[in-house]
Amino acid sequence: MQDVQDIVFKVYENVHLEEGIVVLKNFLVNAYMYRGTSVKEMSRMLNLPVPVVSAIKNEFKKNGIVDLSNGIGLTKNGEIYVKDVLGYKNADTDVLKDILENTGIDLSRFEKEIEELGAIYQNRPEVDVEVDQSKCTAETGMKRAVLMLKSGCLIGKKIACIGDDDLTSIAIVLLLKHIAVSDNLSGMADITVFDIDKRILSYIKKVSEEYKIDIECIQHDLCNPIDNQYKNKFDCITTDPPYTLNGLNLFLSRGISVLKKESNLSVFLSFAHKTPQIRFLMQQLFVNEGLILSNIYPKFNVYEGAQILGGVSDLMILTTTAQYTKELISGIFSDEIYTGKFKQTIRTYECKQCSEKYLVGMNQKITTIEQLKSQGCLKCPANKFNLIRKG
Amino acid sequence: MQDVQDIVFKVYENVHLEEGIVVLKNFLVNAYMYRGTSVKEMSRMLNLPVPVVSAIKNEFKKNGIVDLSNGIGLTKNGEIYVKDVLGYKNADTDVLKDILENTGIDLSRFEKEIEELGAIYQNRPEVDVEVDQSKCTAETGMKRAVLMLKSGCLIGKKIACIGDDDLTSIAIVLLLKHIAVSDNLSGMADITVFDIDKRILSYIKKVSEEYKIDIECIQHDLCNPIDNQYKNKFDCITTDPPYTLNGLNLFLSRGISVLKKESNLSVFLSFAHKTPQIRFLMQQLFVNEGLILSNIYPKFNVYEGAQILGGVSDLMILTTTAQYTKELISGIFSDEIYTGKFKQTIRTYECKQCSEKYLVGMNQKITTIEQLKSQGCLKCPANKFNLIRKG
Repeated sequence: MQDVQDIVFKVYENVHLEEGIVVLKNFLVNAYMYRGTSVKEMSRMLNLPVPVVSAIKNEFKKNGIVDLSNGIGLTKNGEIYVKDVLGYKNADTDVLKDILENTGIDLSRFEKEIEELGAIYQNRPEVDVEVDQSKCTAETGMKRAVLMLKSGCLIGKKIACIGDDDLTSIAIVLLLKHIAVSDNLSGMADITVFDIDKRILSYIKKVSEEYKIDIECIQHDLCNPIDNQYKNKFDCITTDPPYTLNGLNLFLSRGISVLKKESNLSVFLSFAHKTPQIRFLMQQLFVNEGLILSNIYPKFNVYEGAQILGGVSDLMILTTTAQYTKELISGIFSDEIYTGKFKQTIRTYECKQCSEKYLVGMNQKITTIEQLKSQGCLKCPANKFNLIRKG
Repeated sequence: MQDVQDIVFKVYENVHLEEGIVVLKNFLVNAYMYRGTSVKEMSRMLNLPVPVVSAIKNEFKKNGIVDLSNGIGLTKNGEIYVKDVLGYKNADTDVLKDILENTGIDLSRFEKEIEELGAIYQNRPEVDVEVDQSKCTAETGMKRAVLMLKSGCLIGKKIACIGDDDLTSIAIVLLLKHIAVSDNLSGMADITVFDIDKRILSYIKKVSEEYKIDIECIQHDLCNPIDNQYKNKFDCITTDPPYTLNGLNLFLSRGISVLKKESNLSVFLSFAHKTPQIRFLMQQLFVNEGLILSNIYPKFNVYEGAQILGGVSDLMILTTTAQYTKELISGIFSDEIYTGKFKQTIRTYECKQCSEKYLVGMNQKITTIEQLKSQGCLKCPANKFNLIRKG
């Protein structure tokens, strides 16, 4: 199949799309899934102008990949490429279409998988709050996997989970099983998990073996750079980092380091809904990393137990650009990243008696609660305070 | 009502929320609409942690605005404030709840308004392509108004339309009429339109008079700063600027200049779905203007006629921050802003004979089509080219 692979690169050289080679692959997948589709419909699916789609179509035709005898279809070579290289061989296209054509994410068709995932989640290792672990629900895990599928970031893709205490990797496996024609899931996606916690890695390893798919599990402290052998290799990353700016910066940086240097690759980022100031600083960080914020799904993730804001977080899809995307942290990182240890957290305390509020934290007039207690309230004689807000 | 107004500011001083005074107003509106609601439910509605909502509640209680005898409700003073100052006097809360509680935007309940709006749109002035005018559909106009309502940016708000060839102002009026108990729409929202085109302004003026609501129509070339009397006065802006980075920068800057200097105010921005590079530069611009990209609605807007990408554009909600939001352009702007005149547009031409592609535009090796024609194709003897992409 090296030949067709080469042709896709050659076509990319010719049409030189800013949207990246991934769009050419999507073109072929659409031609496979929706044989006979029109240029206009393809333009809508790819979100590209009609003349650009026309140019792509003609280039593929010239190279014997696309068959235009009846709308846009694939030649035999094109079909082999989509099946073998792009990973669609074992995918049931009817099941797939059913999911893709549904606007939004309809979980009702995944009841069986959610139940199965729920049982697997039940037995996962206890959370280690020291490293900001928390457990998302089985529904959330499945929603994430479906969103990745619908975004074209699952089948045939090389996926890196940058931290995976949520077992998103396993949710992906269950979704693949849902789509697969045969039991053999290998080749449908290539998943690698980087996590600091050996317990989680061995649990993922054990479960994945039961599903006869190989998930590569790397024990790794993300404060250290990821090994060179994994650099520039992945099509997509998913991460739910510690909810601090340092944590975000570090996990995104490590994620970028393993992503291919291509345009239009996706980062599935889960993060708490922060105050406007922090959200602004997050977006400044995205820009500094050269990432585009392409989609925002408010309150997408639901967690067990976590009580801040009722245990929900947002999911964002960030998109790479060929020109700008670059990790900000490339060496060893030695600052704090976890919320509990994070010295810059600003807490708001309220005087128990008169309700006067005080900001406490690094760079504030009062840096610790002990200091606040020893000075006492400035408005009344009390020196007892309630914590009313963190972060 | 100055008293209660003062109390809201006083409470804001005390709880000093980064989310801005607008959250306190929303708290009162929710207490009015959902009398008896719980702190937990209020926390969910405001997207704020429970302890913060508790603190707000207690402050309002202390100041005699909120009544806690049975869940969260309003005192008589609080109710007068919400009705008279926050503009809810003439709003039918059942109709309102029905719209707000519907996830997404269900246009079926606005069939009558869409028909009415369609007739008004029919008679609007012809588009002037020189200034990048285009006509969105009546459905799009209504969707925008409903989105503003659902985002808490319509009732009682001072709204500026920064350019309004789409007649969004009129769509808002029709939505207000849908919600209103009586025919008197004044006081429900305060709309000002800034546009360069006198024909559009006089049409808006004429239609608004038929609906007995006063829309202030200001003829203004946005290349000049907006008059000081309008600065720092508005709660919300809506704009569909020329689809160039200059156009975006200019319209956002003028919009920011008329917005109050508060946190958490919204900019409803419609803009074409651009290439990754341009989308990145747009987001860099948002960060430089100190705005947060809070929501993205892909393909939200549909336009009549416009054929690029099937005549659709995205809608984004940008949010102000108290610390960072600042217009980048404050003086007279003399660069090009319209797509047709915009020298930096990069066009892709294809050789008619061999399909070789050439990028043409400012900062490219070839800056004009004339230059390309005179040099001819580098791969074959032809010198005729098709334009296959703009932008």
